[in-house]
Amino acid sequence: MGELMNDEQTVNQKRRSLFKLSGVLLGSAAVTSSLVPRAFAASPATTPAFSAPTRDNPIRINFNENPLGMSPKAQAAARDAVVKANRYAKDEIVQLGQKLADHHQVTLKSVLLTAGSSEGIRAAIEGCATLDTQLVIPELTYGDGEHFAKIAGLKVTKVKMLNNWAFDIPAMKAAVADYNGPSLVYLVNPNNPTATITPADLIEPWITSKPANTMFIIDEAYAEFVNDPRFRSVSPLLSQGMDNIILLKTFSKIHAMAGMRVGYAVAHPDVIARMNREVAGEKINFCGVDAALASMDDAAFIAYSKKSNDLSRQILLKVLDELKLPYLPSEGNFVFHQLIVPLKDYQKHMADAGVLVGRAFPPADNWCRISLGTPEEMQWVADTLREFRKKNWV
Amino acid sequence: MGELMNDEQTVNQKRRSLFKLSGVLLGSAAVTSSLVPRAFAASPATTPAFSAPTRDNPIRINFNENPLGMSPKAQAAARDAVVKANRYAKDEIVQLGQKLADHHQVTLKSVLLTAGSSEGIRAAIEGCATLDTQLVIPELTYGDGEHFAKIAGLKVTKVKMLNNWAFDIPAMKAAVADYNGPSLVYLVNPNNPTATITPADLIEPWITSKPANTMFIIDEAYAEFVNDPRFRSVSPLLSQGMDNIILLKTFSKIHAMAGMRVGYAVAHPDVIARMNREVAGEKINFCGVDAALASMDDAAFIAYSKKSNDLSRQILLKVLDELKLPYLPSEGNFVFHQLIVPLKDYQKHMADAGVLVGRAFPPADNWCRISLGTPEEMQWVADTLREFRKKNWV
Repeated sequence: MGELMNDEQTVNQKRRSLFKLSGVLLGSAAVTSSLVPRAFAASPATTPAFSAPTRDNPIRINFNENPLGMSPKAQAAARDAVVKANRYAKDEIVQLGQKLADHHQVTLKSVLLTAGSSEGIRAAIEGCATLDTQLVIPELTYGDGEHFAKIAGLKVTKVKMLNNWAFDIPAMKAAVADYNGPSLVYLVNPNNPTATITPADLIEPWITSKPANTMFIIDEAYAEFVNDPRFRSVSPLLSQGMDNIILLKTFSKIHAMAGMRVGYAVAHPDVIARMNREVAGEKINFCGVDAALASMDDAAFIAYSKKSNDLSRQILLKVLDELKLPYLPSEGNFVFHQLIVPLKDYQKHMADAGVLVGRAFPPADNWCRISLGTPEEMQWVADTLREFRKKNWV
Repeated sequence: MGELMNDEQTVNQKRRSLFKLSGVLLGSAAVTSSLVPRAFAASPATTPAFSAPTRDNPIRINFNENPLGMSPKAQAAARDAVVKANRYAKDEIVQLGQKLADHHQVTLKSVLLTAGSSEGIRAAIEGCATLDTQLVIPELTYGDGEHFAKIAGLKVTKVKMLNNWAFDIPAMKAAVADYNGPSLVYLVNPNNPTATITPADLIEPWITSKPANTMFIIDEAYAEFVNDPRFRSVSPLLSQGMDNIILLKTFSKIHAMAGMRVGYAVAHPDVIARMNREVAGEKINFCGVDAALASMDDAAFIAYSKKSNDLSRQILLKVLDELKLPYLPSEGNFVFHQLIVPLKDYQKHMADAGVLVGRAFPPADNWCRISLGTPEEMQWVADTLREFRKKNWV
């Protein structure tokens, strides 16, 4: 594969195929004009220009990062914050908290800023758990819940997945009902690494039935990428005053701010007060706070971020269909697809081709999580997959 | 005081007294040329120009922030990081950890990056404490130790101060020796809010005697401002392999990066591993990480930061001497001085004059902590104190 990637003709072929994208993929001229990569040049972002990947400068589709770069307005705000950053962000943290409270239609006391959503997950677990609390999770989900629950000494109850790695909500309900003690239920929606949603009609009745001694930690890190109308955020339940939900959010994904470490929790004020004990003073970095404030006002960027992700997903799903590689319905900025070779071989071939793909996610052996890069990057990945098929590597 | 601050003549008088500073304060021409404010114009910083404070744009000497602004190199690095900050800082976090390990002459596994030193204090306490652990602290010290210990359910043993608010190390030793269980000893050196140091000759023998079941959490946030040779960092003890010390450091003070949230702990790898369980994944923001890397290489800025603080301290101590207001020997970027009026009256008068001073620090009633602003700011504060004396406000 190293040779293939150094082959100029191949590179040029890939470049050409990239610019034919609109015709191949999209069909309608109206859709095309708003979605093709060239149109993106005039878009509200400052995404670096695409260049052929190398081992040293790979396509990074391994950490569910948003490839576009932050909103230009957020970038400007972050840069402007640097001269102030000898001081603690104090007023600005309150401003961001209030803006988020308004966004979710709750009061300021229902919001806790966290250094990314990792801190939110830890604070939710440590703030709510008693010595006899169990954490109930699906077997295949984001690992931080289990990680922090084990550190906190909680019993972790993993519920087996249904076909196609869907959450088995009735079995999770049973795990709560059968347990003699308090439960924390950690639900990531859309889920990671599967990128699938759990329909609101399965979650909301459970939450609103108010099972005794049960707190729902709902991680909606990827919610803004969803198209499926069966998904609904739990945010309205919180503005209605429900006190058994912790909604976790992050600026890492749709806002493309993973490296800025800004997340937050929304919950009843009493719950937020408990979580607040477990964080180091709600001291968020000044660049991140000001970037988040600016990004929230940049509706054009959010729309662009969503559209770009939709297009990248289309490009990847098209080649997966073509190669008859099964995948789960993706509602996030990543796709979980099946392999015919062991993951570690696939990862190695991809790395040799300058593409970093996701890690192993047991028990989903022989599946791979591919984060969605830019449309240009995904076209490259699509062409790479076609090359791989010729060698029976995929 | 509102009137006084609006009086143009007074403002101009203050400006004039500022520019006469060198002659008044410093005596030697050699010292003068390196320290007077005008020389600072060519210095390695981008400190905003001084302007007369107002209630809306006050002199902020209430949070021990470094008034200079970050190193210009660190500012450039932080700004350059913004375009990358859609991604997690991963390689850069390892680079910073390694650079800090080299700086302290320990291995990478002896360093844990934390989001400011608050997270370090929390992780030290939660990582080391068992259910029967006590935290031993002096009665007047930085509050985060007690705060997180109480949340973790620890017994907190406060040891009374000696005259002049010095730590009573023999009494702290006794508190450890008399306790039937493990102890964490939290020592801030130089201490906050007193700005005083505890001599190494009192601390080192205690640590190296390895009292049973005792971990020393040594918070050296302000160490780089110290002039007193009786102070020594515990860092060499760590490079010698001592496993009963957690050294906490921050980029908030000498590096002027409070708003960037970058701190770290140095300890034995086994201790760091325990602390690592209590932080959310050592995910530090990209701007902060790159700024810290750049700031560590900017020796000229560090030297300037120290010198500016020395000069600001001289200006403040001169007026305190003149007004016969007692103060403790300051080895930090703040001064703890005595009042003849209640603190809240002093705070109000200062606020009316556009100056925000420190909060109450019980049990030191009728003392005030004044953080050291720029020399220009401290000259303004000095003149303000002289005006206050005329009104018997100080």
